[in-house]
Amino acid sequence: MKFKSKILPLRTERVAVVLSQDDAAELGLLPGDRVKVSLDKRSFVAEVEIASEFVSQGEVGVCSFTAETCSIEEECVVEITPFARPKSVEYIRKKLDGGRYERVEIGQIIKDISDGILSDIEMSTFILANEIVGMQNDEIQWMVEAMVEVGEKAVFERGTVVDMHSVGGLPGNRFALIAVPTVAAAGLLIPKTASRAITTASGTADAMEVLANVNLSVDEIKEITEKVGGVIAWNAATGIAPADEKIIRVEYQLELSPTPHLMASVLSKKLGSGAKFVAIDIPVGSKAKIENVDVGRSFANSMMEIGRNLGLKVATALTDGSQPLGRAIGPALEAKEVLEVMERKVEGDMLEKSLGIAGILFEMTGIATNGYQHARKIFESGKTLEKFREIVAAQGGDENVKADDIAVGDKRYTLHAAKEGYVREIDIAVLNEITRTAGAPKDKGAGVYVHKKRGEVVKAGDPLITIYAEKEWKLDNAIEVANAERPIVVSGMVLEVYGRRGV
Amino acid sequence: MKFKSKILPLRTERVAVVLSQDDAAELGLLPGDRVKVSLDKRSFVAEVEIASEFVSQGEVGVCSFTAETCSIEEECVVEITPFARPKSVEYIRKKLDGGRYERVEIGQIIKDISDGILSDIEMSTFILANEIVGMQNDEIQWMVEAMVEVGEKAVFERGTVVDMHSVGGLPGNRFALIAVPTVAAAGLLIPKTASRAITTASGTADAMEVLANVNLSVDEIKEITEKVGGVIAWNAATGIAPADEKIIRVEYQLELSPTPHLMASVLSKKLGSGAKFVAIDIPVGSKAKIENVDVGRSFANSMMEIGRNLGLKVATALTDGSQPLGRAIGPALEAKEVLEVMERKVEGDMLEKSLGIAGILFEMTGIATNGYQHARKIFESGKTLEKFREIVAAQGGDENVKADDIAVGDKRYTLHAAKEGYVREIDIAVLNEITRTAGAPKDKGAGVYVHKKRGEVVKAGDPLITIYAEKEWKLDNAIEVANAERPIVVSGMVLEVYGRRGV
Repeated sequence: MKFKSKILPLRTERVAVVLSQDDAAELGLLPGDRVKVSLDKRSFVAEVEIASEFVSQGEVGVCSFTAETCSIEEECVVEITPFARPKSVEYIRKKLDGGRYERVEIGQIIKDISDGILSDIEMSTFILANEIVGMQNDEIQWMVEAMVEVGEKAVFERGTVVDMHSVGGLPGNRFALIAVPTVAAAGLLIPKTASRAITTASGTADAMEVLANVNLSVDEIKEITEKVGGVIAWNAATGIAPADEKIIRVEYQLELSPTPHLMASVLSKKLGSGAKFVAIDIPVGSKAKIENVDVGRSFANSMMEIGRNLGLKVATALTDGSQPLGRAIGPALEAKEVLEVMERKVEGDMLEKSLGIAGILFEMTGIATNGYQHARKIFESGKTLEKFREIVAAQGGDENVKADDIAVGDKRYTLHAAKEGYVREIDIAVLNEITRTAGAPKDKGAGVYVHKKRGEVVKAGDPLITIYAEKEWKLDNAIEVANAERPIVVSGMVLEVYGRRGV
Repeated sequence: MKFKSKILPLRTERVAVVLSQDDAAELGLLPGDRVKVSLDKRSFVAEVEIASEFVSQGEVGVCSFTAETCSIEEECVVEITPFARPKSVEYIRKKLDGGRYERVEIGQIIKDISDGILSDIEMSTFILANEIVGMQNDEIQWMVEAMVEVGEKAVFERGTVVDMHSVGGLPGNRFALIAVPTVAAAGLLIPKTASRAITTASGTADAMEVLANVNLSVDEIKEITEKVGGVIAWNAATGIAPADEKIIRVEYQLELSPTPHLMASVLSKKLGSGAKFVAIDIPVGSKAKIENVDVGRSFANSMMEIGRNLGLKVATALTDGSQPLGRAIGPALEAKEVLEVMERKVEGDMLEKSLGIAGILFEMTGIATNGYQHARKIFESGKTLEKFREIVAAQGGDENVKADDIAVGDKRYTLHAAKEGYVREIDIAVLNEITRTAGAPKDKGAGVYVHKKRGEVVKAGDPLITIYAEKEWKLDNAIEVANAERPIVVSGMVLEVYGRRGV
């Protein structure tokens, strides 16, 4: 049947068209069915929604995302015909039944995901099937290849291109803002792409955005990297491995991120950015994505093997994922903290981890035999801060940026210790929740400062955390969360006593 | 934050509200997140969609389904606050990890599904978890109780209330239109509720709708049943077990119907309609929902056990699910065929099965020791047809309805046999597809008439099937399907020959 197009300004992440109830019934379509939409000499597949009013009989509503993706304008004549389920659904069903993907099969699935053809229900099945049945290393490798294939790619003609990435999930884990300029200062090229916060309160891209523009195209990334040696950009804006963003959207709702997807996500981004050597940070902790060292080791081995088959040299570092890195959580607080480290005002785990990760890349590329020491030398010479400011300037930020310039939320509340003892445990999930409730990542100044970390001694009345917010009502909500689910557990040295009365 | 409501005429099966991008960012919400919507003294939970235009800042769009369900009018002031994930998601995750539902847990899940709180992604997880991990009989029983609890119920003060149901999936399986009046003619009460087609081409409710109104409330069902002894109504209109429809919508996309859900679906509808004795038809065949007799037996045993614990007496019949029942597929063709049977113009499997199922109920209730013979006697006395016409009249149809009155599609095409032999196989999935493509169930006159059934002898040029349609283009499409995927396999008696040349 032929229809006239009408653009509907609804945001949806899928390719979808809207028909009137009568037309849908005429074509025998139910909501969620797929149709082939043909116009001019091209055609694409879309999901059907049914509306009682927005579109009249003879009209087809096209959501704005679909209109852009598929270049449809107002009042085009389009032909709509029912379309059978895509082949990729069959492949997903095979995995669900315990099977294995062939190379072309996982390739087709990734293509259909990128094209927005799969429904939420089918995407969920894909994720659940991979979680339950698992994927072997070669299947993950093919998935990475397909993810890179359908996206943008950076190709460097010269220089040694390296990269670093974290599996993520740890609050305050902003080592890249120190490690990237350290690596670049040594003459390596590092086109670092990073995520914004999804489930956490702030991502590397959110923190970097406090200081500079992170929405860069692949061409801009290449240009800046070749000019100053490094860049820190938001990965989704680059168009590298676009299927990843779509998969993550559904995983966020499922609260589930299958290990094969975690691997494919990291490797596809690094491969797409043109890196040859990659250092991967794997935070390990009971509330982290990787729950213990055994799981971490097997994860690391798979990453290295898959990387090798993709032509990537991969090194992995299992790191402490049981408490925040540094003391600051939230975009502005984190940006401020890394600047304080680079300005030599504070030391500690943030600096150690940054130098450690940079050092791994120095050893991999043969620049130094003791990478950590090499990194420390660069850092102490002031070249890290200098290079960081160059990168910030190249991304449109202030070339003289200082920690003191960074504005953080002016609505504040400090939680104090009720009794003395030491910090036995920090709940990173609760810290994330407090920071998000305070307004992060949207309100850049919102966040949490952790005064006492694990093992530190606490006196009654000592500050434990300070919550920062830009809006009073968000601060109030965050305080409520903090009081309900105490993020920091203070204990005396003696936890429990048995037999005190000689029993 | 406070918002002003704006009703959006988009159909969606979920409870959803639409915010502007700015407001969503302000509240820290992503698409698919849930919010608590409060107005006057009530509140409900809804899923968030984000729009770039339809709603301005300060406005909340309310989809029409949500507006009706939650009684919101235009320009109400509503308060919106972020809402944590519902508890039921945690229970679904537990099942996915191989666990068991507690009674309150599956109860909460069913309530949240009925209330439209779970997203497509969470619903998919629920269905996949139950498919993969399975459910034990007590979990299914609790699921049924919860499904009945949240819906409408018919309560009969007197009389013996019986019912019948098919697990479904078999084209032409319209025995209820003969069996229900036969049972009612014997003085039993039978408030039969039935489905419309979902994946098949026609359901019992679609065929009955050719003759009478099937959109009846629970009160109407009770009233008509008490007056004439029986009714044949569309189950979704009754409001009995409303979660079932929502689960089925997602299952349709997944092409998956977990066995525990099949059981819960049938039992909840029967329990909600007030029945005490239920006969269940379980078609068994390689393309049917139950693929072989072993699976059928174990299915039957579970149904009987769960029924017993719910206070229902359940009998089950394994029946031939390898080819259509009768020869007609499609609403009007099926209605015509059952009338022809009741008018004593044709005999065969349709009559046999109808009398068999009615007979089971006669034996269960102690009305007869040989139920089939008792049913045949009633049928041959003409009381079945008489009662059927009473039921049709009570549901607003023609009390003198005859087979010859039923109009079927006037666009027709007959497929002929190319060679002689006998019918070795009929593909019910292909027959369904042809019938749907021809326009069923929406075009009531669309359908397929099967001239030759399994084992029947075919001469070259004999008609195999006739396709009926109301529209020429739908007929053309159906012919294309029929030619591409031949639904009827004709073979000679000798299938393959080995060693003919003495090898």
